[in-house]
Amino acid sequence: MNDTPLSVALLGSGTVGSQVARILLEDAEELTQRVGAPLRLIGIAVRDPQAPRDYAAPAGLYTTDADALIDAADVVVELTGGIEPARTRILRALRAGKHVVSGNKALLAREGAALQRAADASGAQLSYDAAVAGAIPILRPLRDSLAGDQVERVLGIMNGTTNFILDAMHTTGADFDDALAEAQRLGYAEADPTADVEGHDAAAKAAIVASLAFHAEFTLEDVHCEGITGITAADVAAAQAEGCVIKLLAVCERLEEGVSIRVHPTLVPNEHPLASVRGAFNAVFVHSRDAGQLMFYGPGAGGAPTASAVMGDLVSLARRVVLGGPAVPDFSYAQLPAVGPEDVVSSYTMGLQVKDRLGVLAGMAQVFAEEGVSIRTMHQTKHGPHRGAGQPETTIRVVTHRAADRRVRATIEKLRGLDAVDAITSVIRVED
Amino acid sequence: MNDTPLSVALLGSGTVGSQVARILLEDAEELTQRVGAPLRLIGIAVRDPQAPRDYAAPAGLYTTDADALIDAADVVVELTGGIEPARTRILRALRAGKHVVSGNKALLAREGAALQRAADASGAQLSYDAAVAGAIPILRPLRDSLAGDQVERVLGIMNGTTNFILDAMHTTGADFDDALAEAQRLGYAEADPTADVEGHDAAAKAAIVASLAFHAEFTLEDVHCEGITGITAADVAAAQAEGCVIKLLAVCERLEEGVSIRVHPTLVPNEHPLASVRGAFNAVFVHSRDAGQLMFYGPGAGGAPTASAVMGDLVSLARRVVLGGPAVPDFSYAQLPAVGPEDVVSSYTMGLQVKDRLGVLAGMAQVFAEEGVSIRTMHQTKHGPHRGAGQPETTIRVVTHRAADRRVRATIEKLRGLDAVDAITSVIRVED
Repeated sequence: MNDTPLSVALLGSGTVGSQVARILLEDAEELTQRVGAPLRLIGIAVRDPQAPRDYAAPAGLYTTDADALIDAADVVVELTGGIEPARTRILRALRAGKHVVSGNKALLAREGAALQRAADASGAQLSYDAAVAGAIPILRPLRDSLAGDQVERVLGIMNGTTNFILDAMHTTGADFDDALAEAQRLGYAEADPTADVEGHDAAAKAAIVASLAFHAEFTLEDVHCEGITGITAADVAAAQAEGCVIKLLAVCERLEEGVSIRVHPTLVPNEHPLASVRGAFNAVFVHSRDAGQLMFYGPGAGGAPTASAVMGDLVSLARRVVLGGPAVPDFSYAQLPAVGPEDVVSSYTMGLQVKDRLGVLAGMAQVFAEEGVSIRTMHQTKHGPHRGAGQPETTIRVVTHRAADRRVRATIEKLRGLDAVDAITSVIRVED
Repeated sequence: MNDTPLSVALLGSGTVGSQVARILLEDAEELTQRVGAPLRLIGIAVRDPQAPRDYAAPAGLYTTDADALIDAADVVVELTGGIEPARTRILRALRAGKHVVSGNKALLAREGAALQRAADASGAQLSYDAAVAGAIPILRPLRDSLAGDQVERVLGIMNGTTNFILDAMHTTGADFDDALAEAQRLGYAEADPTADVEGHDAAAKAAIVASLAFHAEFTLEDVHCEGITGITAADVAAAQAEGCVIKLLAVCERLEEGVSIRVHPTLVPNEHPLASVRGAFNAVFVHSRDAGQLMFYGPGAGGAPTASAVMGDLVSLARRVVLGGPAVPDFSYAQLPAVGPEDVVSSYTMGLQVKDRLGVLAGMAQVFAEEGVSIRTMHQTKHGPHRGAGQPETTIRVVTHRAADRRVRATIEKLRGLDAVDAITSVIRVED
């Protein structure tokens, strides 16, 4: 046991920061045993020391001078979120050789490689397990447990808000707007839900996961991102009729030409372990060459769960510091291009509204055949004349076999050009 | 990049060892990049160099002289299993400061603490993630990711053979003997299935998991163990009628007085994530104070999956050795007693055969009341006279509220003493 304490500076005291302060202060004795030296919280940088908080640390710990706090610390825990001032502060710490624990997915997805280089240059440790999937240990298994395996594919439900909304749409038959309003009422969605429902939050996490899974540098810009705002109650009903649920999946996939990273709504068969991930839970499914199929499941957000992940990083790095060990950098050695969605091969389901005319199906089938997109199933439902006027209409649902994205896009363009096709109401990928 | 290779000695070339040899030889270039120096397989200690193997390494690598091989290596990978000569060889390596990766659950569950002390004394690393749940990364998350949290309870399906048998009993209605025979025919159970069906294999894993989860030393002797040989088709049918499945669970639980570690058949409600773990898959469910509920799921055995876990340990420790870092010992600092099953509080389901007489239920209820075991539900089914002779019989199924094990045992003893009770056909715990 070493008596020299490690000084910890906490930046931010929101939902997660408050819980980290609580654990550091209330579990001090136990943490000392686990680390081999005391972990001393020397201050909490906040904008307003008087603001109310989930957990109130002794008033003397709060400060508005983040830089002075950083300079006095051995380890900096950054939980403010956003790009600035988090970026400048983390760089200040790393350049001075101070270890950093961060849960800032937006920053890490954009500048993770630059931050890692700053850490490597000074021998500091940069840890960020809390940035992806809250408390679910996913980054450490990818980096360490699967370090001798070949990851082929990662499929993740990495955003609790969208999973809650989609789950509600499946359970109640509600349309997107109503399910979103309910999620907002219950505190599962923010007043401005854009980052969640447009998939940006999941996309940031996907970039971080892909970097660790494939040992290469990827950023948010490498991620193709589609949100769930276009998903209708009719799409959900059609998915259920196919024995599937619609999930917003983050997919990181090793292809021959490189790595595809994408976030999009996906039909997942009911038997797939990801189909039963309910409410605001997250889950990450990993396919690897030797380990086969692994799944990690748990709360993807929340103050205490995310604080648990932050503390795991903090205790692990503190233990190593006490033992006199060097930082263990991430090992991004591979030069792998991110490939665009156009080369990705998936099955698709499409909904079309067509005129009830002779030869419509034959004309459509011709378009699919021209583009080499093979049809697995085609269902049609006839409706009477719409609102009592005009011609009768037909709804068609097509499920394709696996086809390259650009082939499917070309097919859709051509279908739109057919006189008998009034509208293409949905195009959703299917996970086989 | 360091050019000095790390020499790896492989002890054993069975199902897992063959796959480790394959990965070391076929992925040599990729592994060099990941580690920062070459990992060189210098030899494979076997009993018979001529024996056929799943993967044939160059003949020159096989040797019968394990000691000479150990002495020439930097890292020893022990995959022979069993207590001796594995124990003596691991100690030889650790005492000479050589790092050891092992997947030997039987040995680690018995002598893990002694081996760890040998490693600590010489500054060697002892890693054994492959010993529990095959490829599923569970030990590393417990040790590192949850290092700042308080684990309260771990529930695991940690034996694929018994899960396969129980799953078959649920799916086909088969009795235990038939399901076991089918598992043996398909290669999921060994000719002598004792270690699996009596729960010994799961018990060894539970001891290792409990030690890491609660930061204290536990051995196989601390585990209360009941197997599945007594589970009947009638028990399975009764469980299904209750909306449950029967699983062989390893339970590691923090109680006020200490830690309870046990393996026993358990009724798990259909909605519980562990209920849907099918066939030979494993899963580990962790409840912790801050992270909440986490689940880890994957293949619990098999050559390639277990080799993936071995390689994860090997690459992680090799990376640290290349960086010049010290070994990171496990941190068993807590002095926690293992408590016997008699203090554990659970719900139970019981099956009884009773005579169809007036007052039988009242007499039984009186016994439960005397022992303070509260009855949640009681169902009775009347049968005609057994084999056309004697009195008509009644089957009674009782589900209790939570009660201490010793209270339930006392209740059972008293019930056996009742003249109207012919037999107690089953007593199974229920996971709420």
